[in-house]
Amino acid sequence: MSDTEIAERAGLDALAYVTLFKTALKIFGASFLYCVIIELPVNVTANYYAEFNQQPSVAGDPDRQLQFSNFDKMSMGNVDKGSPRLWTHVIAAYWVAFSCYFILYTIYKNMSHLRAQFLSSFGARATVRQYAVLVTDIPASETDRHSQVDSFFHRLHPRTYERAQVITKLSEVDKKYKEKEKVRRKLAHAEAVYAEAQKKDSEKAKRPQHKTGFLGLVGEKVDTIDWCQKRLAELGPELAEERRKTVNERTIDAALVFFNSRAVATMAAQSAHARKAESWQTQFAPEPRDVIWANLGVSWWERFARQSIVYGITFLIIFFYMIPITIVSGFSTLDNLRQFAPFLDPVFDIGAVRAILQGFLPQLALLIFLAILPKLLFFLTKREDLTSLSHADRGTAGKFYYFMVFNVFLGVTVAGSAFGQLKQMTTNPTGIVDLLGSSIPQQATFFITYIALRGFIGYGLALSQLIRVVIYLVKLKFTVKTEEDKREAWAPGSFFYGKNVPKDLLIVLLGLCYAVISPIIIPFCIVYFGLGYIINKNQALNVIVPEYESGGRMYPHIHKRFVASLFIAQLTLLGYMGIMKFTYTPVMIPLPVLTVVFHLFTKKCLETRFTATPIEVAIQVSWFSDVFGGLGNGGVVEMLGHLQEVSEEPTVSEVAAAYTPECMGGIEDVEASFSTAAPASSREYETVLLNGGNGKVIA
Amino acid sequence: MSDTEIAERAGLDALAYVTLFKTALKIFGASFLYCVIIELPVNVTANYYAEFNQQPSVAGDPDRQLQFSNFDKMSMGNVDKGSPRLWTHVIAAYWVAFSCYFILYTIYKNMSHLRAQFLSSFGARATVRQYAVLVTDIPASETDRHSQVDSFFHRLHPRTYERAQVITKLSEVDKKYKEKEKVRRKLAHAEAVYAEAQKKDSEKAKRPQHKTGFLGLVGEKVDTIDWCQKRLAELGPELAEERRKTVNERTIDAALVFFNSRAVATMAAQSAHARKAESWQTQFAPEPRDVIWANLGVSWWERFARQSIVYGITFLIIFFYMIPITIVSGFSTLDNLRQFAPFLDPVFDIGAVRAILQGFLPQLALLIFLAILPKLLFFLTKREDLTSLSHADRGTAGKFYYFMVFNVFLGVTVAGSAFGQLKQMTTNPTGIVDLLGSSIPQQATFFITYIALRGFIGYGLALSQLIRVVIYLVKLKFTVKTEEDKREAWAPGSFFYGKNVPKDLLIVLLGLCYAVISPIIIPFCIVYFGLGYIINKNQALNVIVPEYESGGRMYPHIHKRFVASLFIAQLTLLGYMGIMKFTYTPVMIPLPVLTVVFHLFTKKCLETRFTATPIEVAIQVSWFSDVFGGLGNGGVVEMLGHLQEVSEEPTVSEVAAAYTPECMGGIEDVEASFSTAAPASSREYETVLLNGGNGKVIA
Repeated sequence: MSDTEIAERAGLDALAYVTLFKTALKIFGASFLYCVIIELPVNVTANYYAEFNQQPSVAGDPDRQLQFSNFDKMSMGNVDKGSPRLWTHVIAAYWVAFSCYFILYTIYKNMSHLRAQFLSSFGARATVRQYAVLVTDIPASETDRHSQVDSFFHRLHPRTYERAQVITKLSEVDKKYKEKEKVRRKLAHAEAVYAEAQKKDSEKAKRPQHKTGFLGLVGEKVDTIDWCQKRLAELGPELAEERRKTVNERTIDAALVFFNSRAVATMAAQSAHARKAESWQTQFAPEPRDVIWANLGVSWWERFARQSIVYGITFLIIFFYMIPITIVSGFSTLDNLRQFAPFLDPVFDIGAVRAILQGFLPQLALLIFLAILPKLLFFLTKREDLTSLSHADRGTAGKFYYFMVFNVFLGVTVAGSAFGQLKQMTTNPTGIVDLLGSSIPQQATFFITYIALRGFIGYGLALSQLIRVVIYLVKLKFTVKTEEDKREAWAPGSFFYGKNVPKDLLIVLLGLCYAVISPIIIPFCIVYFGLGYIINKNQALNVIVPEYESGGRMYPHIHKRFVASLFIAQLTLLGYMGIMKFTYTPVMIPLPVLTVVFHLFTKKCLETRFTATPIEVAIQVSWFSDVFGGLGNGGVVEMLGHLQEVSEEPTVSEVAAAYTPECMGGIEDVEASFSTAAPASSREYETVLLNGGNGKVIA
Repeated sequence: MSDTEIAERAGLDALAYVTLFKTALKIFGASFLYCVIIELPVNVTANYYAEFNQQPSVAGDPDRQLQFSNFDKMSMGNVDKGSPRLWTHVIAAYWVAFSCYFILYTIYKNMSHLRAQFLSSFGARATVRQYAVLVTDIPASETDRHSQVDSFFHRLHPRTYERAQVITKLSEVDKKYKEKEKVRRKLAHAEAVYAEAQKKDSEKAKRPQHKTGFLGLVGEKVDTIDWCQKRLAELGPELAEERRKTVNERTIDAALVFFNSRAVATMAAQSAHARKAESWQTQFAPEPRDVIWANLGVSWWERFARQSIVYGITFLIIFFYMIPITIVSGFSTLDNLRQFAPFLDPVFDIGAVRAILQGFLPQLALLIFLAILPKLLFFLTKREDLTSLSHADRGTAGKFYYFMVFNVFLGVTVAGSAFGQLKQMTTNPTGIVDLLGSSIPQQATFFITYIALRGFIGYGLALSQLIRVVIYLVKLKFTVKTEEDKREAWAPGSFFYGKNVPKDLLIVLLGLCYAVISPIIIPFCIVYFGLGYIINKNQALNVIVPEYESGGRMYPHIHKRFVASLFIAQLTLLGYMGIMKFTYTPVMIPLPVLTVVFHLFTKKCLETRFTATPIEVAIQVSWFSDVFGGLGNGGVVEMLGHLQEVSEEPTVSEVAAAYTPECMGGIEDVEASFSTAAPASSREYETVLLNGGNGKVIA
């Protein structure tokens, strides 16, 4: 199955995630060719460890003998210090580096090509958002927000601006909508239960009843079906009233602006609009499902403050995460528990229970903390007031990756908490190369075990989907009555990129760091990423339902971390070469420099294609409709009617409807709200202008 | 004289430079209020040095006595270690920081306001370039470049694209043009000489003659006036032919694209155009005089490579500048000179000459190197293929500033070469705070002398303009004959921002670093910047002729270095407080954090207004002409004829003419070259399209 097919069926975001595995597979495959086939035999036959122990001065003295496993015998450490055999490893480093550059560049280029294809494809979800620009930080004004936005954009884009949809505070209407939904489902549920009962015994069937008070435990007992029908009849008009109020009274300082030309919308999203930089900020509108409505309408100042605070907290979490854990662990000792819950004493007195609790309790805090960490980071990242879920996912992935690098990777190798690492680094940063070189090679065996465990246990669980099936069966038995209930209970959810991506990238980092030093890690990596590729591709195609579609915006994030891993690996090897007393170590210095240049190169040349849509991509296929400025305009469509594609272009109402949150209802509501607030089309404006009504236009 | 007036008379770039002095004056003025009036007496009355020397154990032992000057007595070091008096200095640090934030923010905001005003003003030079977008990296194509650019932009901006001017390789035509100019001036010169001779003695006057060969030393002797007239007659057609060839055959992969709408031009300059990021890159067109024509047409790859190399070389210059100087100094000892030029032996034997040479020669290399350094850096920066002189100036200023901070500021305080600093820093960077704190305070006296010397000698020279006047008088006596010669000989040139700005910013750094530690430096800074303000404002208004007008793009550069200086000053004081054994030193920690936040804040909120023109600014005043899409369009002008401003809008031919390099001749040539290469107006395109000729448009 080709990349294009995956992108079409599962979306570009899922493809970006699957590509992570493909890229890693290719890189470790290429490394395998040299490092395992050529370098590994060189290491094994060198026999440094065994010979060292056979030296007359060492042989008799067990204290001075080196401890080594079979894994160690296959590593670079088994080569004599300063031996010319080390040239093999120099070549290995260059081989790995250049394979990485080649593979990363071609795959990145391919992804950027797919993204361009996705953005310029007709009928795709992409099309809708290419007419829309998200505007935030609309300055305070005395006039009505609708006409304020309207006059501003009409002045700047007189011929291409179509209409604006001011964002509203949805909390009230959402509450009402949720209530209505709840009642509707309660009714469906009650009807299903009643029908089932009637089927069994049509005479004895009791109509379902419930109490109206708190949690259905207190209050008057009513007939559920009747009550629900009555309540629904009331809620209809209430919701409509709430929607009307929301549109007219609860506007916030953000809006979606729709243009009749993809080219102009694309340019407007990338351009500064207002004289004051902190007002009227524009950006590419995220895909409708991707928007975090609740985060819109926060002022520039508040967003700046929130971001600073979130970064501060993240810094504290990464570097001082041991502190809260130690405190909680301290509280959660057995003795404390006894004091807190003396009635459990008899249980604690059972020997086995006590042993398990004593060993297990202090670890529990750590385990819980690590399990909730990605969710906590996601929560924090959302508080930064990012406008889209995809951005929040990327932010979470970045933070979690830093946490893992500092606490798992450096934590294990150099030992101690991240703050310890930081201190060590800042007191001696040229020493960082020596530090990496001296401490990382010793941990090869540990990390090989880590990768194997992560692979087999993690993927085993993912494959069996055990937990999900159990939950589903339980729900099916007890709560599921209607088709809707069933669909919801079985809903597989989406990938949590913020958690998964950094976890897999950590394995990339480990693999690259040990590829030359201890090449036996490579087959483990190949198995890990091979399994991951198969399982995640299957999940993406057949199981997962994506929450949003950002067009593969995650890939630059992944690419950069591949490059960073390569850079760290090169520094490590540089340091280790020094420790191996290799005279020609300076031949390794160009490698990290090259990696930095490669990073800058891909950043300039490919990353920009993910952050901004080029006009050429935006107007692909439909360029001729731009000439006439008509978006779903009757005359033009008729004239160019023989061109099938034109009719697939969304009308501006369709675009607006796509950007209407569920709780605000369907397209009619939006239409109604706009018929008074905004002019139907920019064409009207021009007519007014040409007829000489200069003053009226802006006011 | 208000800022607006300076901007109008001398340009916004000159205003940005003058504002440096104004900002510094305000900051040191505010610091004076607290640090000199309140803190200085606290220091002087503390009397630590004198009391230390009077201790019984120290008084008798001259080795243990502290050496201190009167300057030292006025510094913070004169306060007892750990004394509560140090709270005065904590308050001083906060006072300086908050004055800086306030002054820097208000001035930056004012500058950004002036820039917006400048960009949206009518009739200013700014207007021309707001219709133009500079396009680089036009991909190779088989079709003619003119029509390639034309079809690409017409496809993307069908209604707003007006025409393109493909940039050409100017070296050939420039040679011919320069030759013509040279002959023209030779003729004028010869005629003036002959006329003068005739005036003295009309009969004996000899017609000027010269030899046609190398440097006028060999070859046939000819009558200059006749020869020049003949040559000019030949050169006219030759130049015309060369211009024709240039336009048609010597096109390079860059073009200026003109739109009929400021809004679209502004958006196009900020937006990605092509699917491939490294092709069709757009940017705001620099002002015509500001363009470095020779740097256009370099491919993306070459530019990337050149930039990397220039950064590499700059790194080497900054950190290893001592090496070439040591080598050159080594060669330029007296003994080497003797061997090289034995015929000068008798001169060297004179005692006084020998003494001077021996003392002076090794320093000579250093002096020459430092004098040519800004020019060398400017040369290097130009090789980065920047498109504008103003950008090259900023690049030079940045590089020179780093050189000065590492080699002058840290070089003096911590001693040794920049590479030594770097090594010291990397081996112990948390120690950097301690290092700054312990070494900088000792050098106060040195730097006060430095500022005084720089001020009095430097400004003395600038004020007297001695060197320029001497050169002018010599030229007037011997070579100046025509009015044109005279104008050229007296031409004062422009500010060399790349050299001046970092020199003055170094004083800002010194002033801020010592403001609290040794407040007696403040009056010296006030005098320095006060004199600088008066002299440079006068130069800007009455002497200097600006080379280009970039609209104050230098100011963000200046602002950022003010903030960086404040940051360094705060770290220094933090370190020094620790050395002074002040128990409450941690109250100082929020200051550098605040400065970082302030930096991020101004970067987000104000710097963007210098890098990108907002649409609102671009269309100011003339927004209504955009509605009709007409730039100098007859009908619209007539219709809105009562609005005076419209007629001041440049026509597209005027815009094109402004962007024609001098050697390519005036407006007619450009017109002629375009009448065949490009359609007269986009209006024609639309007619073609509406008549159904779909295929023809793009081809």
